[in-house]
Amino acid sequence: MKPIHVTGIGNALVDILARVEDEFLAANGVEKGIMTLVDAARAVELYGRMGPGKEVSGGSAANTVAGLGMLGARAAYVGKVKDDQLGAIFAHDIRSLGVGFDTKMAPRDGGPEETGRCMVLVSPDGERSMNTYLGVSATLGPDDIDEAAIASSEWIYLEGYRFDGPDGQAAFRKAVAAAKAAGTKVALTVSDPFCIERHRDAFAAMIRDDVDLLFANEAEIKALYRTDDLSAAIRAAQSQLDLTACTVGAKGCHVATRDDVRDVPASSMPMVDATGAGDLFAAGFLYGLVEGRDVTACGRMGCLAAGEVISHIGARPEQDLKALFRADGLL
Amino acid sequence: MKPIHVTGIGNALVDILARVEDEFLAANGVEKGIMTLVDAARAVELYGRMGPGKEVSGGSAANTVAGLGMLGARAAYVGKVKDDQLGAIFAHDIRSLGVGFDTKMAPRDGGPEETGRCMVLVSPDGERSMNTYLGVSATLGPDDIDEAAIASSEWIYLEGYRFDGPDGQAAFRKAVAAAKAAGTKVALTVSDPFCIERHRDAFAAMIRDDVDLLFANEAEIKALYRTDDLSAAIRAAQSQLDLTACTVGAKGCHVATRDDVRDVPASSMPMVDATGAGDLFAAGFLYGLVEGRDVTACGRMGCLAAGEVISHIGARPEQDLKALFRADGLL
Repeated sequence: MKPIHVTGIGNALVDILARVEDEFLAANGVEKGIMTLVDAARAVELYGRMGPGKEVSGGSAANTVAGLGMLGARAAYVGKVKDDQLGAIFAHDIRSLGVGFDTKMAPRDGGPEETGRCMVLVSPDGERSMNTYLGVSATLGPDDIDEAAIASSEWIYLEGYRFDGPDGQAAFRKAVAAAKAAGTKVALTVSDPFCIERHRDAFAAMIRDDVDLLFANEAEIKALYRTDDLSAAIRAAQSQLDLTACTVGAKGCHVATRDDVRDVPASSMPMVDATGAGDLFAAGFLYGLVEGRDVTACGRMGCLAAGEVISHIGARPEQDLKALFRADGLL
Repeated sequence: MKPIHVTGIGNALVDILARVEDEFLAANGVEKGIMTLVDAARAVELYGRMGPGKEVSGGSAANTVAGLGMLGARAAYVGKVKDDQLGAIFAHDIRSLGVGFDTKMAPRDGGPEETGRCMVLVSPDGERSMNTYLGVSATLGPDDIDEAAIASSEWIYLEGYRFDGPDGQAAFRKAVAAAKAAGTKVALTVSDPFCIERHRDAFAAMIRDDVDLLFANEAEIKALYRTDDLSAAIRAAQSQLDLTACTVGAKGCHVATRDDVRDVPASSMPMVDATGAGDLFAAGFLYGLVEGRDVTACGRMGCLAAGEVISHIGARPEQDLKALFRADGLL
């Protein structure tokens, strides 16, 4: 057994969460329901127009390992913040959950780019529209990948958003090579259909050659395999991957092995804010895997963790996830 | 009619909110239910021990004027932040509610003190224990008081916490003198029983000579008039003040004029987090006053606004306060 269950690699961000009416999205040219990268000027403009916010540590893979830490799994995180106030908040929040976080901070006097942030605009229907200023999170590169730390993990969990950024793919290549050399398994979350469009060949090559477990939602897996037929997309994934976990919103998820697909129902929590649903699905699913549970139980744990995080504003769990698993008979 | 209804003066803080068990308070020497001033070293120590937080703009008088802004009243705020990330968040949040905020920020390279923050530890019973690192908020002084801005306000609203800090009382004296010269009325919130003990004579002199409207809770008014008898304390206040609004938790409030006391019931919202209850009571009450309502209606508006803010984590309202007032038949 390796000392770390899961090491996540992703964009280290602080979320700025605010409720908006859909008219605000339209008036400000924000595309609903997806993640849009914004530069510093657009970030300042949009922030100046939005209402008061709550700041909560975020970042997709960071949310996943935060959930794993809350569940008592041994998790670690690799992502770049600056030595500024938001960076200190991010580092505090993830470490306080027992998650190892040793990535070198960008120095305080190292230029104008700050710790990255994501303006999460939550509509009345609970859908969230994300506007991400990557800041220094985009600068995570191969030098930040500690091969020994990767080798000491059972799994690495790669955030698709990191295909953006100058050295992101090089950092992933180094991490994957270290994983393959050490018998560490590789999980990838697709993150976003538009991210696939931007980096289709790189995604395809990694999935074909290196990935053991793929996380995607319905739109993402369809975009990945260029089909409008979900069953066809899942069959395509089965031909390439040992394990595929495809979330389908309020219907739960499909968990596909090479020769079988299990349908797992969603949790019945009402949706207040969809932020973090996919991230916490992955946390619950990976927790089941490292605890040696069958894939149906893994899927159910994923659905319950996702259900918790959509029941309130913010992408980090507020309730005791283990208590939810126990109440469902899973523990 | 003056262009501004209410100008609040207080400590500009960002809250760091986290849930804790009562055992955490005991193990870390945190006194439950009150505000404790902490220095930078203690702030770092306590933050290092507490779990992940949510950052939300706070500050007692700032919460009050934020509520007034949300209600559509013309409000302004005087308080000191630094030109750093938390300062930018504070300024954004209050301005985005339409509240004027022109206090000069402390410069970015002006020393080690940062924007002030308050670690708000919320117990399972909803009680909050506050640990405040004042940072640059403590440096607000007479130079930050714009007499013309005070003169253009119908009310100034002074936060008792500002009796702490080197120039706080001098700033208040300048503001009160400007108010008196311009026919601007003076409201004071006592803030905290221990703050009274620290500055008893200064509080007593201001209340006797300058204050038109006093806000206090039961513990504060008893401490102020050195009695365990609430009725006696309210009678003492009546002998000094035209108007006294005394909150009594789940029982609502007593609103005392010179010759009458009205008992107003509380809102029936369940308490999740007491943070900001007094601040939003004052917002609702002052809104009623500037709208020309009778004191019973003012008290009820205060109770409804307080009820909203205790129904969720954080000291700024999340629901539409006017809708709550309408549902209660007040608008």
